[in-house]
Amino acid sequence: MEIREKVFTNLRHVKEKNPLIHHITNYVTVNDCANIVLAIGGSPVMADDLEEVAEMVGFASALVLNIGTLNSRTIESMLVAGLRAKELGIPVIFDPVGVGATNLRTNTSEKLIGKLKPEVIRGNMSEIKVLAGLEVAIKGVDSLADEQDGSIVAKKFASELGSVIAITGKTDVISDGSQVCLLDNGHKILADVTGTGCMTTSLVGTFCGVNKDYFTATVSGIISMGLAGEIAHASLRHGEGIGTFRARLLDSIYNLTPEILAKEGKIRYE
Amino acid sequence: MEIREKVFTNLRHVKEKNPLIHHITNYVTVNDCANIVLAIGGSPVMADDLEEVAEMVGFASALVLNIGTLNSRTIESMLVAGLRAKELGIPVIFDPVGVGATNLRTNTSEKLIGKLKPEVIRGNMSEIKVLAGLEVAIKGVDSLADEQDGSIVAKKFASELGSVIAITGKTDVISDGSQVCLLDNGHKILADVTGTGCMTTSLVGTFCGVNKDYFTATVSGIISMGLAGEIAHASLRHGEGIGTFRARLLDSIYNLTPEILAKEGKIRYE
Amino acid sequence: MEIREKVFTNLRHVKEKNPLIHHITNYVTVNDCANIVLAIGGSPVMADDLEEVAEMVGFASALVLNIGTLNSRTIESMLVAGLRAKELGIPVIFDPVGVGATNLRTNTSEKLIGKLKPEVIRGNMSEIKVLAGLEVAIKGVDSLADEQDGSIVAKKFASELGSVIAITGKTDVISDGSQVCLLDNGHKILADVTGTGCMTTSLVGTFCGVNKDYFTATVSGIISMGLAGEIAHASLRHGEGIGTFRARLLDSIYNLTPEILAKEGKIRYE
Repeated sequence: MEIREKVFTNLRHVKEKNPLIHHITNYVTVNDCANIVLAIGGSPVMADDLEEVAEMVGFASALVLNIGTLNSRTIESMLVAGLRAKELGIPVIFDPVGVGATNLRTNTSEKLIGKLKPEVIRGNMSEIKVLAGLEVAIKGVDSLADEQDGSIVAKKFASELGSVIAITGKTDVISDGSQVCLLDNGHKILADVTGTGCMTTSLVGTFCGVNKDYFTATVSGIISMGLAGEIAHASLRHGEGIGTFRARLLDSIYNLTPEILAKEGKIRYE
Repeated sequence: MEIREKVFTNLRHVKEKNPLIHHITNYVTVNDCANIVLAIGGSPVMADDLEEVAEMVGFASALVLNIGTLNSRTIESMLVAGLRAKELGIPVIFDPVGVGATNLRTNTSEKLIGKLKPEVIRGNMSEIKVLAGLEVAIKGVDSLADEQDGSIVAKKFASELGSVIAITGKTDVISDGSQVCLLDNGHKILADVTGTGCMTTSLVGTFCGVNKDYFTATVSGIISMGLAGEIAHASLRHGEGIGTFRARLLDSIYNLTPEILAKEGKIRYE
Repeated sequence: MEIREKVFTNLRHVKEKNPLIHHITNYVTVNDCANIVLAIGGSPVMADDLEEVAEMVGFASALVLNIGTLNSRTIESMLVAGLRAKELGIPVIFDPVGVGATNLRTNTSEKLIGKLKPEVIRGNMSEIKVLAGLEVAIKGVDSLADEQDGSIVAKKFASELGSVIAITGKTDVISDGSQVCLLDNGHKILADVTGTGCMTTSLVGTFCGVNKDYFTATVSGIISMGLAGEIAHASLRHGEGIGTFRARLLDSIYNLTPEILAKEGKIRYE
């Protein structure tokens, strides 16, 4: 089955199966993450207390861990929920927000990755480079050189870790260690709104909740965000900006169909 | 005075008295709850630290407790604020988000209900059934059988507890143990947006802040949300979805008048 | 250089320099604060754990401290981050949300002000009066008497503390202890939306991140919010309210130019 058909089927399955996606995430963008999961057809649950996370994740189809506003209490909950998810065969999707900025973020990311071997890790170029132990020299995937760089980094790190690695930027790069997929949807206004990265990770989580092929699930989540961003931006009128864009982004995810996704997705293989 | 007149008067009083509603609530939908209270005419305050909640609740006209993202710190604050509210005669409105999913939620709900005897409890059918100690077999009030079921559950549980019980769903059921009121406003898109349940509870809290008749206050809060949901949905154009709907929902609450509420509210007595 | 030119230059510098603004703030309006910083041209980071705040603030151009939902954990982080900011010469902008309502808020504010000597403090009239040790008799700057009152309070307190003091209300008053500036932009609907005060403080922080003249930076942040509020309100159509207004407020900040700001800003010197 071609990737385009898989993306089509994945979105159909999200809408049919309504997967429950357990998040332990930051308090900045948590509302956006919940709404984007609902918009695509999933069901979000946000629960972070140590006393309930292992029980809650048992109902979930995927677990999203996001360290945007990590603290000692929630780090412990992430570990406990993550270990329980692994026992149950529930995929763990990790968003290493700001890794490299502080030792706490770097150490926590290393600990979570070491103990949980997340099925998917999604970040920007500098975050993934930090995790892969590389020098951070560039800020995004903005040129052909960067695109090639992204492919090499994603493929190598995915291969070492046995995870799907997704680097989002102007061109998104996804690799499972053997395949590398490049996505060209999206619009630069997405970088002007808080939480678009977190929401992308939540979409990836939602697709991972219905398909054990985490590579195509990740492609599906990221292409959904890129395409919705394009549609939302195209709808803006004079005088509108990121406030209206945020609402239209949710609208566009809500109205996304498998047909549109398969038709308008700009997917390349390396 | 007929219920319709009471609803009319309740909304007028909210707009005149601008009641302060103290919330200890979850971090997912807290912004929505604050804005919905402002939109209807109240004044929200969110404060959850153990060192200040007893003092803060003293300024409030109602206390809303919501366990959406409960943790050991906030559970303790809920108890302390709740006990102080009871001493002062300030109504406590309880939203048992996700009760039954984890032991922490079930035990916390039982403790809060046992110690605080909330004036109002609002949840969906499965949440209220868990609290009432019944088998949870259905997910909402979606058919005639469920509506009758809801009436029986709400009335019995309200009578046992001495609280107003509200079960929201396709038809909303509110009982104080003797009366049962059925509300037919609303739109199914409300279930596609995070926080509409929490916001409904916050509206109920706002009405309870101006009327000691908690039964009609609860009816007023729930019918406001249902009617605003209808108006907001009717305003959507092609390509719009839950992003725009969320904004219009706040708009519709903001523009709701006692006249519209009394005229368009679909209120039945059992 | 005239104030109007300085405001013009300040906004140009924000857009050119994209300052990183570290926030330790409340979970009610944190998403709005992040988006308003992005909308004006800055870069927000929200991090509150004791283990990382001192490291994180080292990357920032300004530190915003907001006690909206303070707790013992975040109070400690505010102190540590604030002390590190002072060592590094990074400006601290303080928003004493709800000071005077509880002892925790009052004591925390006094401690933070005493130890950190924030470069800017922004609050409403009653909050600033509490901090200045004055009787709180009025609720805002709503009349000529209040405006004069505001000027006296702001100037005296700024002079005592060596900080810029901003009192926002119908007329905004900003003083550095010698100069007093009065701003007449804004619209009363801003008070009907949660977080407009917090967002104003975040804008002030963003401007302080590019200009060590904190007085004109504060004027620039507050006038931006007032003017955006006017533009957003003027765009509302029949049936729209605070939901649409919130989106348009972000839109208006996003589309604000140095030219519009310098031309439409209603700035008076006392």
